Amino acid sequence: MKLLKEKVMAEGIVLGEQVLKVDSFLNHQMDPMLMKEVGSEFVRRFAGEGITKVLTIESSGIAPAIMTALELGVPMIFARKNKSLTLKEDIYVESVYSFTKRETNEITVSKKFLNADDRVLIIDDFLANGEAAFGLARIVEQVGASVVGIGIVIEKSFQPGSKLLKEAGYRVDSLVRIASLENGTVTFVEGE
Amino acid sequence: MKLLKEKVMAEGIVLGEQVLKVDSFLNHQMDPMLMKEVGSEFVRRFAGEGITKVLTIESSGIAPAIMTALELGVPMIFARKNKSLTLKEDIYVESVYSFTKRETNEITVSKKFLNADDRVLIIDDFLANGEAAFGLARIVEQVGASVVGIGIVIEKSFQPGSKLLKEAGYRVDSLVRIASLENGTVTFVEGE
Repeated sequence: MKLLKEKVMAEGIVLGEQVLKVDSFLNHQMDPMLMKEVGSEFVRRFAGEGITKVLTIESSGIAPAIMTALELGVPMIFARKNKSLTLKEDIYVESVYSFTKRETNEITVSKKFLNADDRVLIIDDFLANGEAAFGLARIVEQVGASVVGIGIVIEKSFQPGSKLLKEAGYRVDSLVRIASLENGTVTFVEGE
Repeated sequence: MKLLKEKVMAEGIVLGEQVLKVDSFLNHQMDPMLMKEVGSEFVRRFAGEGITKVLTIESSGIAPAIMTALELGVPMIFARKNKSLTLKEDIYVESVYSFTKRETNEITVSKKFLNADDRVLIIDDFLANGEAAFGLARIVEQVGASVVGIGIVIEKSFQPGSKLLKEAGYRVDSLVRIASLENGTVTFVEGE
């Protein structure tokens, strides 16, 4: 996605070989017009898949997911990372390890919002090791519903998540794929 | 806002006299079409205010805030509740107590995204005791920027937040105001 690639080049900050900071438009400050374009691009890429729900995880996945769901005209669900007091029963739970935060979270989705006949598009802002995406996919599969695919805004292709997800049979579609962050420079996967 | 009031009546679940669960369209599953209408309504109510930024707090504020920011054509910023590894310096910090979760969070906003000449609209999903809104407002004022107003999706008017914020001089505009949750029933403020 050309617009997104330009934004990464203009505003992304490389913090070491593993971390790309994009908090000016995706992770902290958000560019709503870009998020709308991101949503439209996911809808285009997953056209004809009969998606009934969009599933993401708090917090940075919410904006791209809600824009995608708006254009599809379907509900969006965001998995929570902590069980809150008002969501304490009838939930699906999966454990997800965050390499960035170095902690394991329980991610939860209320059982009443997913059904066996749902066709679910999973959306997330980043794909690195794939922990969050696998956790979300396991929740969908606990229900007996289908994972239509996994739509990622920025994929760090030098980390194993994308490969592992594809090996597990999931369709992964990333709007921007980064081959390397070495030498303080963003190098995209060829052909992007 | 009629559409929102109808949604609260149809899908809101009263859990005791303090807690209204609206996780089918606002706090967990989200109705993107409704969120778009909510954004449009905030834009209408705060028209002519010269808003330059929309500020909210993760996670449930993000969807209404991004829809508002999209229609205004300005950036949206969501305050984070925990300092992450990639946001460790140059941040404004305020402590906010959550009565729901019975814990104090540090909420943070990166200094580079707010300037003294910003005119900031604060958006949040719920207003109860006003802790989050006051915390966000204090961050804006640390910068020397202006709080144009505080837009709330659902106000629990029987809790003190709205009164306290107005006494402190803020304009508070809530799309739905709830007078009481007594007897398992949602009673709206008269004239809603």
